Amino acid sequence: MENSRLEMNRILHSGGVRFDGYHAGGCHLSAAEVISILEPMVSEVRQVRIGQVISERTYSIAPVVEGLVNTGNVSAVMRTSEGLGFQPFHVIRNEVKFKKSVRTSQGAHKWLDVSIWENTPACTAGLKAQGYQIVVTYLDDGAIPLSEIDLTIPTAMVFGNEKFGVSEAMLAAADFTAILPSPGFVQSYNISVAAAMSLFAAHDQRVKQFGRNGDLSEAELIRLRADFYMRSVNHSEDILKRHLGV
Amino acid sequence: MENSRLEMNRILHSGGVRFDGYHAGGCHLSAAEVISILEPMVSEVRQVRIGQVISERTYSIAPVVEGLVNTGNVSAVMRTSEGLGFQPFHVIRNEVKFKKSVRTSQGAHKWLDVSIWENTPACTAGLKAQGYQIVVTYLDDGAIPLSEIDLTIPTAMVFGNEKFGVSEAMLAAADFTAILPSPGFVQSYNISVAAAMSLFAAHDQRVKQFGRNGDLSEAELIRLRADFYMRSVNHSEDILKRHLGV
Repeated sequence: MENSRLEMNRILHSGGVRFDGYHAGGCHLSAAEVISILEPMVSEVRQVRIGQVISERTYSIAPVVEGLVNTGNVSAVMRTSEGLGFQPFHVIRNEVKFKKSVRTSQGAHKWLDVSIWENTPACTAGLKAQGYQIVVTYLDDGAIPLSEIDLTIPTAMVFGNEKFGVSEAMLAAADFTAILPSPGFVQSYNISVAAAMSLFAAHDQRVKQFGRNGDLSEAELIRLRADFYMRSVNHSEDILKRHLGV
Repeated sequence: MENSRLEMNRILHSGGVRFDGYHAGGCHLSAAEVISILEPMVSEVRQVRIGQVISERTYSIAPVVEGLVNTGNVSAVMRTSEGLGFQPFHVIRNEVKFKKSVRTSQGAHKWLDVSIWENTPACTAGLKAQGYQIVVTYLDDGAIPLSEIDLTIPTAMVFGNEKFGVSEAMLAAADFTAILPSPGFVQSYNISVAAAMSLFAAHDQRVKQFGRNGDLSEAELIRLRADFYMRSVNHSEDILKRHLGV
């Protein structure tokens, strides 16, 4: 079983900026150029698979985990997010010491645009600047049922610490606090279950509204394909640098 | 943290038969009589809480776990089921050796009608005799999207072994094999996530169709309240036996 602490360290390197071509040594390759250079090194089966995946991708739902202690929970939410086709993923650390877990993301982090934030206000400011509404799943008297919130507009869906929930700073930034159905004696779900229900609900609303989850423009599809080729091909950066002669 | 192996042993004693009054020594107390005897020993807060819970209960969705190895996964699915208000719960053992887990059901099993089956055909025959359609979540070419299956009729929702999925016997008995949305590179979800999505979908369909999840008749509400009083009051059987003079 993979060590999730290592996995988290790897995630820290992948960055969360949307790919807009390859830059090195003052030179630039467009996404289309990256595709034409790397495509011979991507098997046809893989090319088709990448095409299927990006056709169902969206940036409109941005899952956010805040202050999680258990790396296994982070990995579980990543796996759900990637599986459903949500491309961005935000991790707010808030100086939490991670507790290792044997659960892994099953490689999901490799295919997500993961952003790591040191604290909450930086993240929420970033999300708001990008036009996302912020929806926090939270058990609170003012919370409204998740099913009553419009998840077909750009929405950041926030899941808080295993024990303490989301921070005051996150609650202050939230547009909505949402509650999941829980009419039983058990009045809370664990993070991976709450995230599964919430993200499934968002996917479901989107499919019912638009007929599908994927909503990338032609230009975005090209950029994401180029990005995925870079993630697929071994030493892709070296290959592109050689091509640029830098 | 509680030992889940012990927890499973306890579950084996709770049975899965729907309560229809208390029987002992050839005598019988109706559900209404059980309520009137035990109610003085149930706090008012608890009485109200039980009333809220049973008003949102249904027998129409019957979660089934088949051949799970990890007791933590069984507990996680129980917790989700209880939280959403589904009263029956079926565990098919199929001679599996349980692997202990630190995760617990958070007491959810106490409030479910848990049936333990030694093998699959006995369980599926029992479910069919009770009028349930059998829906298996399964990644297979013939599978149809879960959202296209009517979950507003009595439905057993089956989740299979962590590694091998459901058995051949279960597939043979299934009315539908259902697929969850998974357009990403990650092509499967773990059991607790798949169950969370599937059971949430069932709850959602029921609320959209009927306005609520709960659907018990007055008689069923009385029987379930009596059953929950018995589960709430310490030594409730001794108290009822004393009352009967047996």
